[in-house]
Amino acid sequence: MPILVVGSVALDTVETPFNRMDGVLGGAASYFTTAASIYDQVNLVGIVGSDFPREYLDFWRNRSVNLDGLQIQEGRTFHWHGRYHMDMNTRDTLDTQLGVFGDFHPVVPASYTQSPLVFLANIQPELQLEVLQQMPHAQLTVLDTMELWINTARDKLTEVIKQVDVLLMSEEEVRQYTNQSSILAAVRHFFTLGLKYVVVKLGSYGALLFGADGTYFSAPSYPLEEVVDPTGAGDSFAGGFLGYLSTIQADVSGRFSIDDIKRAVVHGNIIGSFTCADFGIGGLTGLSMDDIVKRYGELVRYSHFDPNWTPQGAH
Amino acid sequence: MPILVVGSVALDTVETPFNRMDGVLGGAASYFTTAASIYDQVNLVGIVGSDFPREYLDFWRNRSVNLDGLQIQEGRTFHWHGRYHMDMNTRDTLDTQLGVFGDFHPVVPASYTQSPLVFLANIQPELQLEVLQQMPHAQLTVLDTMELWINTARDKLTEVIKQVDVLLMSEEEVRQYTNQSSILAAVRHFFTLGLKYVVVKLGSYGALLFGADGTYFSAPSYPLEEVVDPTGAGDSFAGGFLGYLSTIQADVSGRFSIDDIKRAVVHGNIIGSFTCADFGIGGLTGLSMDDIVKRYGELVRYSHFDPNWTPQGAH
Repeated sequence: MPILVVGSVALDTVETPFNRMDGVLGGAASYFTTAASIYDQVNLVGIVGSDFPREYLDFWRNRSVNLDGLQIQEGRTFHWHGRYHMDMNTRDTLDTQLGVFGDFHPVVPASYTQSPLVFLANIQPELQLEVLQQMPHAQLTVLDTMELWINTARDKLTEVIKQVDVLLMSEEEVRQYTNQSSILAAVRHFFTLGLKYVVVKLGSYGALLFGADGTYFSAPSYPLEEVVDPTGAGDSFAGGFLGYLSTIQADVSGRFSIDDIKRAVVHGNIIGSFTCADFGIGGLTGLSMDDIVKRYGELVRYSHFDPNWTPQGAH
Repeated sequence: MPILVVGSVALDTVETPFNRMDGVLGGAASYFTTAASIYDQVNLVGIVGSDFPREYLDFWRNRSVNLDGLQIQEGRTFHWHGRYHMDMNTRDTLDTQLGVFGDFHPVVPASYTQSPLVFLANIQPELQLEVLQQMPHAQLTVLDTMELWINTARDKLTEVIKQVDVLLMSEEEVRQYTNQSSILAAVRHFFTLGLKYVVVKLGSYGALLFGADGTYFSAPSYPLEEVVDPTGAGDSFAGGFLGYLSTIQADVSGRFSIDDIKRAVVHGNIIGSFTCADFGIGGLTGLSMDDIVKRYGELVRYSHFDPNWTPQGAH
């Protein structure tokens, strides 16, 4: 089933200790769209400037991405310039140019309104709310955000959290929003806001899934020899998570089973690992369902252990 | 089967942001012994001073710990004073008093030499070598160490690594010893030194098991509401790891199966979690096999997911 996504589409400059690329396709919605379109149709809501390369639009059209909701406006596309430190876990933002994104208000085309799945990728909470208001019949709504909005738009962000089903946050963001050092205590706070699931992203350590029903699930990360470029890993995680859910039939009430949600988290980790292993969206462009199946099987082998142990030999 | 352990036995002063305790039982061998004696007999090699409280000796004797190899010498017991930061992940050593430990040379009593399992807890690599030389018939030898020896006794430590089967190291120690940022590359280096297994301890993120045969296993951590005192968590991990192995029958060549080793890592994480949830050895003293069985079952539920997914619904 089609997934609606709203978020930033950007032209990035990314520097790692070993590389630098200018004008590459970036932004949360770009990573999400490229990732989720491996699974099913993506309906993209966003804005780009007149400088946005036609080849990127063609690339998405060829992946059955619907671009009816992508506004193309006179002016420059949103630009982000970041530089990673040696450990590849921390980065500095050297420059941000809003361009046409500065006056952006998302408009959901009629052709999108039947999308059962909605992903609010990282943008201003206010714009996320505008999309939610245009999608009153969504079956499952998933929210991502970033440190900036926790600091500068906390009330609006809280409004969005109260209206969605699933929150994706990094461990640091969870601590920052809740001011709790205990993740378990922090997650309990989130459930008082009405969420059904909280996914805590642990970077190279995998991800934790918490359910309002008490479910706890620790999903292993896929081991990588080297992290080439972690930009977009979280957006790609969301792409795997919602992309997987788009391929299965929810029950009549629009509910997914807890096993569906667990598998979705595993898919998130898998897609995130492909993104990290190459520069920009390079790890996603040639990716096939077979590649995902292979890594899924590896993760089963890498993380499952004898479920039936009892201490017969113990004294 | 009995497990021989050599390491420090200490009287600690531990400060956390919320607590302070003086003269509590500490040291790597103390945590290991207390943990592993839940499973089977432990043969302790170490040294204490004449100030060492008799009640601790009685406590161990009641847990079928053999103290024939624990030297009691006129003078003061090794003393460590540490203070944890607010995040409970980092700590400062405020004071170390070697006491009788300064002139210690381990002597393995005849009654210990048939121990098939040997744990070299964290002490000077030179002393670890002295014990290995006295245990030529050990079936499985396991090594722990710390940053101090990587910095000050690297060559001796490398000698020990070359003579043991299993290395336990924290992620930071692995990076520090190998000067590699990639854990996978670092572990390959360790296998060139002859190790059979490397266990990379990730603290609250669990542990990774690497086998020289290519095995990779990611073991989940047990989720804790609060870390009360992480002192001895790594030693307790080793106690669960070797304690579990002591309860099973290795094949005639003394080899454990890879499933044995995986279960051992899970036991390590479980025992480490009990230690972190209380002050000092408090989390271990009342621990029963039933408690361990319960947490083992929880970890299965917390980490296993559908092993049979295939993308039938995907287009």
